[in-house]
Amino acid sequence: MVIKDNFSNSGKFLSSINDYKESDIVIVGVPMDYTVSFKPGTRFGPQAIRTASLGLEEYSVYLDRNLKEKKYYDFGDLILPYGNVEKSLDIIGNAAKEILEDGKKPLFLGGEHLISAPVIKEVYKKYGDELVVLHFDAHTDLRTEFFGEENSHATVLRKASEFINNKNMYHFGIRSGIKEEFEFSYKNTNMFLFNVVEPLKSVLEYIKSKPIYITWDIDVLDPAYAPGTGTPEPGGITSKEAFNAIHILKDLNVVGMDLVEVSPDYDHSGITSILAAKLIRESILSFL
Amino acid sequence: MVIKDNFSNSGKFLSSINDYKESDIVIVGVPMDYTVSFKPGTRFGPQAIRTASLGLEEYSVYLDRNLKEKKYYDFGDLILPYGNVEKSLDIIGNAAKEILEDGKKPLFLGGEHLISAPVIKEVYKKYGDELVVLHFDAHTDLRTEFFGEENSHATVLRKASEFINNKNMYHFGIRSGIKEEFEFSYKNTNMFLFNVVEPLKSVLEYIKSKPIYITWDIDVLDPAYAPGTGTPEPGGITSKEAFNAIHILKDLNVVGMDLVEVSPDYDHSGITSILAAKLIRESILSFL
Amino acid sequence: MVIKDNFSNSGKFLSSINDYKESDIVIVGVPMDYTVSFKPGTRFGPQAIRTASLGLEEYSVYLDRNLKEKKYYDFGDLILPYGNVEKSLDIIGNAAKEILEDGKKPLFLGGEHLISAPVIKEVYKKYGDELVVLHFDAHTDLRTEFFGEENSHATVLRKASEFINNKNMYHFGIRSGIKEEFEFSYKNTNMFLFNVVEPLKSVLEYIKSKPIYITWDIDVLDPAYAPGTGTPEPGGITSKEAFNAIHILKDLNVVGMDLVEVSPDYDHSGITSILAAKLIRESILSFL
Amino acid sequence: MVIKDNFSNSGKFLSSINDYKESDIVIVGVPMDYTVSFKPGTRFGPQAIRTASLGLEEYSVYLDRNLKEKKYYDFGDLILPYGNVEKSLDIIGNAAKEILEDGKKPLFLGGEHLISAPVIKEVYKKYGDELVVLHFDAHTDLRTEFFGEENSHATVLRKASEFINNKNMYHFGIRSGIKEEFEFSYKNTNMFLFNVVEPLKSVLEYIKSKPIYITWDIDVLDPAYAPGTGTPEPGGITSKEAFNAIHILKDLNVVGMDLVEVSPDYDHSGITSILAAKLIRESILSFL
Amino acid sequence: MVIKDNFSNSGKFLSSINDYKESDIVIVGVPMDYTVSFKPGTRFGPQAIRTASLGLEEYSVYLDRNLKEKKYYDFGDLILPYGNVEKSLDIIGNAAKEILEDGKKPLFLGGEHLISAPVIKEVYKKYGDELVVLHFDAHTDLRTEFFGEENSHATVLRKASEFINNKNMYHFGIRSGIKEEFEFSYKNTNMFLFNVVEPLKSVLEYIKSKPIYITWDIDVLDPAYAPGTGTPEPGGITSKEAFNAIHILKDLNVVGMDLVEVSPDYDHSGITSILAAKLIRESILSFL
Amino acid sequence: MVIKDNFSNSGKFLSSINDYKESDIVIVGVPMDYTVSFKPGTRFGPQAIRTASLGLEEYSVYLDRNLKEKKYYDFGDLILPYGNVEKSLDIIGNAAKEILEDGKKPLFLGGEHLISAPVIKEVYKKYGDELVVLHFDAHTDLRTEFFGEENSHATVLRKASEFINNKNMYHFGIRSGIKEEFEFSYKNTNMFLFNVVEPLKSVLEYIKSKPIYITWDIDVLDPAYAPGTGTPEPGGITSKEAFNAIHILKDLNVVGMDLVEVSPDYDHSGITSILAAKLIRESILSFL
Repeated sequence: MVIKDNFSNSGKFLSSINDYKESDIVIVGVPMDYTVSFKPGTRFGPQAIRTASLGLEEYSVYLDRNLKEKKYYDFGDLILPYGNVEKSLDIIGNAAKEILEDGKKPLFLGGEHLISAPVIKEVYKKYGDELVVLHFDAHTDLRTEFFGEENSHATVLRKASEFINNKNMYHFGIRSGIKEEFEFSYKNTNMFLFNVVEPLKSVLEYIKSKPIYITWDIDVLDPAYAPGTGTPEPGGITSKEAFNAIHILKDLNVVGMDLVEVSPDYDHSGITSILAAKLIRESILSFL
Repeated sequence: MVIKDNFSNSGKFLSSINDYKESDIVIVGVPMDYTVSFKPGTRFGPQAIRTASLGLEEYSVYLDRNLKEKKYYDFGDLILPYGNVEKSLDIIGNAAKEILEDGKKPLFLGGEHLISAPVIKEVYKKYGDELVVLHFDAHTDLRTEFFGEENSHATVLRKASEFINNKNMYHFGIRSGIKEEFEFSYKNTNMFLFNVVEPLKSVLEYIKSKPIYITWDIDVLDPAYAPGTGTPEPGGITSKEAFNAIHILKDLNVVGMDLVEVSPDYDHSGITSILAAKLIRESILSFL
Repeated sequence: MVIKDNFSNSGKFLSSINDYKESDIVIVGVPMDYTVSFKPGTRFGPQAIRTASLGLEEYSVYLDRNLKEKKYYDFGDLILPYGNVEKSLDIIGNAAKEILEDGKKPLFLGGEHLISAPVIKEVYKKYGDELVVLHFDAHTDLRTEFFGEENSHATVLRKASEFINNKNMYHFGIRSGIKEEFEFSYKNTNMFLFNVVEPLKSVLEYIKSKPIYITWDIDVLDPAYAPGTGTPEPGGITSKEAFNAIHILKDLNVVGMDLVEVSPDYDHSGITSILAAKLIRESILSFL
Repeated sequence: MVIKDNFSNSGKFLSSINDYKESDIVIVGVPMDYTVSFKPGTRFGPQAIRTASLGLEEYSVYLDRNLKEKKYYDFGDLILPYGNVEKSLDIIGNAAKEILEDGKKPLFLGGEHLISAPVIKEVYKKYGDELVVLHFDAHTDLRTEFFGEENSHATVLRKASEFINNKNMYHFGIRSGIKEEFEFSYKNTNMFLFNVVEPLKSVLEYIKSKPIYITWDIDVLDPAYAPGTGTPEPGGITSKEAFNAIHILKDLNVVGMDLVEVSPDYDHSGITSILAAKLIRESILSFL
Repeated sequence: MVIKDNFSNSGKFLSSINDYKESDIVIVGVPMDYTVSFKPGTRFGPQAIRTASLGLEEYSVYLDRNLKEKKYYDFGDLILPYGNVEKSLDIIGNAAKEILEDGKKPLFLGGEHLISAPVIKEVYKKYGDELVVLHFDAHTDLRTEFFGEENSHATVLRKASEFINNKNMYHFGIRSGIKEEFEFSYKNTNMFLFNVVEPLKSVLEYIKSKPIYITWDIDVLDPAYAPGTGTPEPGGITSKEAFNAIHILKDLNVVGMDLVEVSPDYDHSGITSILAAKLIRESILSFL
Repeated sequence: MVIKDNFSNSGKFLSSINDYKESDIVIVGVPMDYTVSFKPGTRFGPQAIRTASLGLEEYSVYLDRNLKEKKYYDFGDLILPYGNVEKSLDIIGNAAKEILEDGKKPLFLGGEHLISAPVIKEVYKKYGDELVVLHFDAHTDLRTEFFGEENSHATVLRKASEFINNKNMYHFGIRSGIKEEFEFSYKNTNMFLFNVVEPLKSVLEYIKSKPIYITWDIDVLDPAYAPGTGTPEPGGITSKEAFNAIHILKDLNVVGMDLVEVSPDYDHSGITSILAAKLIRESILSFL
C-alpha cells in the first residue's frame, strides 16, 4: 500500500511523529466542557489548534530551532463521558499517568481549565514537593467551590494547592477573582497581578533548578489577542509578552504543560487558534 | 418620580404587562445549559428572544389578533446554580408549580430541552392522564440515558413518558435518534417523522377536547431557518410550516408551553431569535 | 409569591439594586442611533453591556473594592421617538435632570455620542463653571455642524462648549477630526492627542478639587480592543491604558458619566461589550 | 493610454456599459439609511450587490437570454446629505426625473425602502393613472406615520397611494403590519398575503397592457434566504418563488424598478447580496 | 499501552474503522483549492465535514440502517503540492486507482470540483462505457476552458465527457452556466434544470442496472441551506429534496462518489458542514 | 446631463481625483489570489480598502496635512486571467511601467504579495541600483520556491533580490520563515526581526537620499490589529507602531508603494480594511 504515504497527518499537530514509542513529548486533546449538548465551548479547542498549527513554519526564528529536532506524538482527543465530571477526570489522570510512566512529557490541550487538575496531580506524584507550578491566567481559579461544585474550572488551582507545595505555585497575569482567592494566594502562594514578563524574570533564579509544570490559560492574553475563549477578561497581556515569557523559560526543566480554554466558536477570524498553536510551538522548542 | 414612565420594559417580551397578578400567561426564562463556564450555549436564548421580539408588530395578520388583547407577565430569567442539574430542575419545577397554582399558564423559554421535564411534570400533576403532550423536535429525546446521565436534553421526553399517558404523547417533525428510541415510540407513543402539518391535522379531532402541553424545540425547523441552535439537524420544516402548525391549533385548550434550544452565539444574523419570538407571538395569539 | 425571589435581574447591570430611592448612582440606557429602522447600530449597546456585565466578578483586584459596597439602580432603556432627534434629547435631558435633582449621579449608556449633550447640560446647570469635562474619544466631536445638521454625534462636544467653561474641557486620546476642530480646541479647550495616561496625570492636580463629568467614547480604544463600534479609528489606546486612566481618577469628585458608541452588531466575539462593562465596573468602584 | 483597457468596471453592476447615452436602463445606488453615523445598515447595500453580481454568469438559462443583449449604465451611488431626509428625497427624485426625461428606465438600488417614494412619484408623473405598482414586501409599508415621522420606510407605499391610482397598486407576500394598514389596503388597494406566485398569475391579465413599476423589498424572501436585511420577517417566500415571480412578468411593459433593504452587515456569508444581484439580472432580462 | 483505547478517531469521519484492509469504502480528503496561500476556500472542507459528522447519530431513521453495518476507512487528507494543478490531479488519480484496484469504493471529499476529474477517470477505466455519472450541481461545469485554463472547477464535467459515454451522463439541479455549455449538454448528455427528485425518478429505470458514479457539488442546494460554499447560486433545492434524491438511489450499484465545494470559512453557523456530513451518512447507508 | 454631478466616486479611494493626467500618484487594485474560483481570499481586498476609506477624514492630525493637497487617481481593479500567474504578472508589470513612464508614482493594492514583484521590477528599471526597498512583513518571503513554484507570495522578495542591489533591501517586523531565508538575508540583505520603529530610525540616515520603494504586507501588524489576512502571524506590531513607521519616513523620496494581503472575508468587523485605508492615507500624506 503506497497510497498511505500521500496523506498528511491532518488532525495532528504540525510535525508530530507517528510512533508513540519514539516520542519524548505526548500531546493529548481533552474535549471537556461539561455540557451534554453537541457543539458549544472549548470542546473543539484541541482540534482547532491542530488545524491552525499547519499554517505555521516548523522553524522558529526566535529560538533558531526547528520542530524537526523534537519528537512528539499526538494522540488526538480523549473519549470522555460527556457530563460525567468525575469519570472524565479519572480518564485524563490515567492518560497523564501512563505518559509519565513511559518517561515522556505530557502536553495537554483543553478544553476547560479543570482538565489541568488530574494532570498536575500525576506530575506531582512523580516529582513531589520540588515541583514548581507556573500558572498563566486572567483568573485566579483558586475558589474552594463554584456554584456549590468542587470540581470546576474556577477551582482547579485550589484543588492543586491541596497537594502541591504552595510555596512553589506561581500565578502570572491574574486580573480577576473574588477577594478570598487573592487572600488565599497572598498568604500561601505567589501572586503576580496583570503582568508576566518581569515577574517571571524575578523568580527565574529560584525555579531554574526545579522540575516545572506550566498551566497556560489562553485568557491571560487580552481579548484583543485571544477573543476565542469562554471568559474573556480585558486588560491582559499582548502576544509579544506571551512569547517573551516562554522564551525566558528557555531550556529549563519543564516536565509537563497544558494550554486550555481555546473556544473556536468565538474565534471568528481564527486568530486565537493560531496564537495557541504558536505558543505550543515555541513552548516545545523552548523548554519541552 | 415621573422618570420611570419613560422606560421601556427592555429585557421583557414584547407587550408583556407589568403586573403578575393580572396576567393569564407567565413567561419564565431558563438560562440552563449545564456548563460551569460563562457564555456558551443556550443560556442567553431567552434574553435574545426577548430582544428580538421588540422588532415584531403586536398585530398578527395571520390571526387578525393583537397582543394587546392578551395579558402576560414576563418574570425574566431564573437564577440557577450552574452545573447542579438536580437543584436546577427543582427550581424550574417550583416556578411552574406556583404559576399553575395561581391559575396561570406557564410559557417557558430555554435553555436546554431538559428544562421541559419539570414543567411537564407539574402540568401533569394538575391535569392528569387527560394531558396531551405535543412535541415538536428534530430529535426523539427519548433515550433512557445519555452518556450515562439520566438527566439530559436527550432524555427529556423519556422522563416525561414515565408519568404521562403515553397514548397522549405526540412527536412531530422528528428525524434523528437511535433505533431504540424509535422502537419505544412506535410501541408506546405517537411518532410522526419529518413533517408537522399533515400529522397535526390527522390528530386534531382527538386532541381538541383535551388539555394540551406543547414543547417546541427550535431545531424542528431546518437549520436554514434556525441556524442558531446547538444541534442543527438538516432536513427540517420551513418557517411557513411552523406557523401553519401553530395556527392549526387555534383556540385549542393549550395549558402550557415551552420553546427551547435557541443558541444566540450561532445565530449570526439573528434570524433564529426573531423566528422564535414570532413563534411565541403566534402561539400566544393562537391558543394561549 | 415566593417565585419572584428566584429571578435574576437579567437585563440589569451586574449587582444593581432594586430600589431607586436607596441608590446613589443611576444607570440609564439610551438606545438612540437616529435611524427609523429596527436593528442597526448602537441602539442595542446598553443591553449588550448589561448582559456582558454578568460575566464579570463584583470584586476588583485593581482597587480591592467590591460592587456590593456601591448602591446603583439600573432603569433599563429609555423609550425614544425614533428619528425625532429634538424630542429624544429632551427626554434624555429630563431623565438626567430628575436624577440630579434626586441627589444621585447619572451614569448613561449609549447609544450615540450625541446623548451626552443633554446630560452634560443638566450637570452643568447644577455645578456651573467649576464643572470639568473629561472627554475620552478617538474623534474631536467638535464640529459646528455635520452634513448640515447641528445635532450630531460629531458636534456633541462643540455643543457642550457653548455653555461649559472651555478651560475646564479636556480631550484625551483624540486622533481624528477636521482641521477646524483642532484649531478650535487648541485655542479654547485642552487637547491631548493619541494618549490618555500621561496627559491625565499632568492635569490631575488642577482637576482634583473640582466636580468632574466624564464622557467616554469606546472608540478611544484601538479597534483591536473595541471592534464593536460604528466608527473604528486605528491607532488607539490599549485596554490596560484605559483601566489605568480610570484608576488615576480614583476617589475624585466625579458627578456623572456616560459611556457611548458600543455597537454589538460589529462585536462578533463580544469583547467590546465586556470591555465596556468592565470599564463601567472600574468607574463605579474608582470614582462614582 | 492603453492601461485603461486593462481595468474592470469593478464597483459597477455586471456587464453594465460605459456610455450613459447609449443605455436603455440606468442603475442608481442610493446609500440612504437615515443615520448620521458611518457604517450601519443598508447604506452599503448597492455596492455589495454590485460586487456580488461579478460572481454571476451573464447568461440566464431560465430565460435563455444574455445580459450582453441589454444596454444599461450604472451611475454608482448618489451623494446624499446624511440625516437630511427631505433633501435626500429631492436628490433621488431629481435623478429619477432626469433618467425618465432621457427616455431611459430607472433601476434604483437601496438603501431604505423610503427611496422608492420619489422614484414612483416621477414615474407616475410620466405615466399617470395607468401606472401599475407591484409591491413585493414582507411589510405593508402603508402607515400614515411612524414614530411621528411622515417620511419613513414604513410609510413609503402610503405616500405613493396619495397620488397613484390605488386600484392599480398590488402588494405581494405581505405578512406584517398594523391592523390599520391592512384595513386601508383591503378597502383601497390589492393585498395578497404571504404568497407571490399565484397572486401574480391571477392579476396578470389585467396588468399586462399597462405600464408597470416594481418595488421589491428583499425581505419578502424568508430570512433563511435573505438574512442580510434590517427587519427580517420569518414566514417568507423562497428564492425559487422569487425567480418564478420575475419570470411570470416576462416581456411586460415594466417602466422602472427598485430593489431595497439589502444590509450587508447582517449578510455574513454574502448570500443576500448574491440573491439580490441575481434578482436584478433576471429582472433586466425578463422585463426591463 | 492501554491509553490508546481511550482516544476517539477525532479527525476521522463518524464511525469509520481503523483498518484499511477490512474496509469496503475508502474516504479521501482532497484539500485542493488552487491557491498558494494558507487558509482560504474549500481546502479545509474535508476536515470540517469530519468534525461535523461527530454531531450526527450513526442510525438513520430514513433508512432504518446504521453506520455500524458499514465498513469504511478514512485516510484523512492527501498531501498536495499547492498551486501545481497537474501534479495534484496525478496524486488524486493515483489514490483513486489504488483504492479501486483494492476492490474498494472511493468516497472523495473536496476541495474544488476539479478533484472529481481524475477520480471519474479511474472509475471509468474500471467500469467502461457502462458507467453512469450522476452530477448534482448548480453549475454545468461543462466549459472547454475557464479564463484560458483547461483544468478548472468549471471544466470538470467537460473533461469527463471526453472519455465517458455521454449518454450516461446526467446533470441535476443545474441553474447556471454559459449558453455553450447548455447547448453541448442538450446535444450530448442529459440535462435536468433546477430540480433533482422528479428527474431522478424519470431515469431510475434506465440507470438501475448500471455501475454509477455520483459527483455532488454542495451548491446544488440553495445558499439558504448551504451558505458555506465558494460560488453560491440562489434558486437551488432544499435539504429535504437532497435527502430524497439520495434515498431514491437506494441499493443501486453506486461504485464511487465525491462531495465537493464545502467552504467552511463562509459557513459561520456550521450548517453547511453538518448538511454535507449527513448527505455522506445517508449516501453510505443508501447505496455505498 | 446634470445628474452626473450628484454621484460619489464610490468604489474609488477617498478623495481621489477624476483625471488621470492631472494625478501625481496612481492607485491600482490587483485582485490576484491565484484561484480559479469566485470569492475567496485577498481578491476583494482593494475594493474593501476603498469602501473603508470613505469612513476616514481627509485631514490627518498626525501630519497636519489634508488629502485635498494631493492629486491621485484610482484606476479601480485590473482585469486578470484567474489562475494564469505568468500572464497576470505581465499585466501588473505593464500597468506599473506605463504609470512610471507617465511620471507618476504607482500605489498598488493587493491581492497577494506576489503582485509586488513586477511592480518592483519596473521601479528598479527606472531607478537602478540606487533603489531602496523597504519591506514590512511578518514573513521573509525570501524562498527560492514554494511547493515547487517559483512564482509565489512566499518568493516575492527573493525574486526581487535577483535584480535589486541587495544592500538596499531592508526587512522590518519579520518573525516567520524557514532557516534558509534568514541565512540568505543575514548574508545579503538587511533583516530586522519583530520590530519596525527603532530599526527604521537606525537606517534613516542612509536611505534618506535615495529613491525608495515600500512594500507593506498587512500581516506585519499583529493579528489582533489585522485579523483580516490569509496568514496571520501572532507576535506583530501595533497600529501605533505602524503609523509611527510611516511618519518616520516623512518627506523622503518614496517613488512607489504597495499594500498587500488584506482579506476581507476574515475581517468580520472590518477593522483590517479601515486600518489599511488609514495606512494608505498616512502614506500618501507622509511621503507619496
